[in-house]
Amino acid sequence: MTNLDSSSIDAYAAKEAGSALTPIAYSPGVLGPNDVEVEISHCGICHSDLHLIDNDWRTSQYPLIPGHEVVGTVARKGDLVSHLQLGDRVGVGWQCGSCHACEWCERGDENLCSNSVETCVGRPGGFASRIRIDGRFAFGIPDGLSSEVAAPLFCAGITVYSPIRQHARPQSRVGVIGIGGLGHLAIRFARAFGCEVTAFSSTPDKENEALALGADHFVSSVDDAALRAQGESFDLIISTVNRSLDWKRYVTALRPDGVLSFVGALDEPLTIPTGLLLSGRRSISGSPIGGRVAIREMLDFAARHQIGAQVEVLPMSKVNTALDRLRRNEVRYRFVLEND
Amino acid sequence: MTNLDSSSIDAYAAKEAGSALTPIAYSPGVLGPNDVEVEISHCGICHSDLHLIDNDWRTSQYPLIPGHEVVGTVARKGDLVSHLQLGDRVGVGWQCGSCHACEWCERGDENLCSNSVETCVGRPGGFASRIRIDGRFAFGIPDGLSSEVAAPLFCAGITVYSPIRQHARPQSRVGVIGIGGLGHLAIRFARAFGCEVTAFSSTPDKENEALALGADHFVSSVDDAALRAQGESFDLIISTVNRSLDWKRYVTALRPDGVLSFVGALDEPLTIPTGLLLSGRRSISGSPIGGRVAIREMLDFAARHQIGAQVEVLPMSKVNTALDRLRRNEVRYRFVLEND
Repeated sequence: MTNLDSSSIDAYAAKEAGSALTPIAYSPGVLGPNDVEVEISHCGICHSDLHLIDNDWRTSQYPLIPGHEVVGTVARKGDLVSHLQLGDRVGVGWQCGSCHACEWCERGDENLCSNSVETCVGRPGGFASRIRIDGRFAFGIPDGLSSEVAAPLFCAGITVYSPIRQHARPQSRVGVIGIGGLGHLAIRFARAFGCEVTAFSSTPDKENEALALGADHFVSSVDDAALRAQGESFDLIISTVNRSLDWKRYVTALRPDGVLSFVGALDEPLTIPTGLLLSGRRSISGSPIGGRVAIREMLDFAARHQIGAQVEVLPMSKVNTALDRLRRNEVRYRFVLEND
Repeated sequence: MTNLDSSSIDAYAAKEAGSALTPIAYSPGVLGPNDVEVEISHCGICHSDLHLIDNDWRTSQYPLIPGHEVVGTVARKGDLVSHLQLGDRVGVGWQCGSCHACEWCERGDENLCSNSVETCVGRPGGFASRIRIDGRFAFGIPDGLSSEVAAPLFCAGITVYSPIRQHARPQSRVGVIGIGGLGHLAIRFARAFGCEVTAFSSTPDKENEALALGADHFVSSVDDAALRAQGESFDLIISTVNRSLDWKRYVTALRPDGVLSFVGALDEPLTIPTGLLLSGRRSISGSPIGGRVAIREMLDFAARHQIGAQVEVLPMSKVNTALDRLRRNEVRYRFVLEND
């Protein structure tokens, strides 16, 4: 897919809920003064892309072009874009726009802006030859990170980096529930922060992988006796899973002032006795992606510590193969599509 | 009750679960080197005293001497007590001992110590002529606070002061759910912090009282339309109630980074969709009393701002009258017993 000279952008789209993706072309319209057009080299595949394709959140519009872990080079830029040059290698994540005027945007917490624009929700995403977005959400990638391992940092990476950044210190004990696209990056980031890291997974054969990723300990997430044996161990537990576990055990495993942070919404509401929060002044929190300040910081930190995603690269023309395998959890830990 | 010269202490005790209190005398034993004996002038009555009398928590031992909002003067002190002099006016709250060696004690967060000793749990409390406790949990009371309005600060006061201290800034918008012994002090403290304060109560006729206490707004805690209309308004909501409300509404009423803090355990587990926490990076937390640093700070702050409890004083011999009326919520907002 190289279509740079034409105004038309080639992409892969779902025509209806749950369908396979098929080629499509669309016109991106006028390039705004703050916009950049990125010639896409790579795009990671996130579980959210499946949710969007399947209309799980009842908000999808079709044809739907998924993709929000985009890496490429700046091919065009609007008159007001001064921080990027043509040819710069950049990444784009889940968010590609915000109001730039509210208190959250002014603090660099654009992820909390109530006028957030999402890269592939109601507008075309990154399973494509090119993408146009607000240049303020295109972030230069440090030279030390290859494009394929950097792509997943823009959604999976920042999603787990944010609560670590917010709640962990180097001396913290951090638990990570679910060792997949998000969890494996959480282990790597927490390890690089200097934390003691425990991986929780329902898949016993991930133990060796978790330890290789940098975890100090591995605990079965569904072994009640093992969970009880954790005592009050953790300053921070990050849950990357959707299905409900025995959350009482995890809250009880928090030390005083500890935080259980959800980076993905559970399929069912969380039920917890408030006495467990009172005892030890514990908290339950949620954390959605990250703002621009945190993204820039993460990229610098990732480059210094050589933290990228563990990926399997497939050509973008094999997008349906990748999606099918992701549905069966047959990837460790992230598919990244590369433009053919 | 004045029995200072004898080794025996006069008190009121429940002989069995739910019984009226009757006079009792007990020997306090040896005064330890870090202990003080306080001649009690006043003791507030907290709902926790009723829970203990009634054995609601299945931990009560009888005869049970309630009382953990104690004010009096130092009548004896151990050899190692150097921060208090005989005759000093002091207060004692829910906690009267800790290990003084763990990281939480060393930080001044003794309320998080796992070896906490509670003033009237498994040992005699403050419905008595005197009490002996670890002198490190007896706090000098500033001259500007009268004993009767100061007594409830040692449990109700510090319980609500702690989350305000932890989460609120002067520019914060603070909600207080439940306008009783705890809630009325939360309004006063939050107001004195400079916050915009909204009182939530299921009792409509508390509106004028809440406004008189310093609330800027009053909202019915069970009026769904009124709760919806709050939008994303609050940086901090403190719940002082035990019964379940529609917590989704309260979480939704939090601004980004807002905190819903429970200072009392709910009778039923809390159920909440985690998506509401992810959206806006909101938190749900618990807060148990406060450590020594926070208590000293609160007392200084309360004296400077003339914040005390709104109390009804009864002689200690009328303790059963007070308890009966408290069971019927016939007090605004705190009974304080005064030794006859």
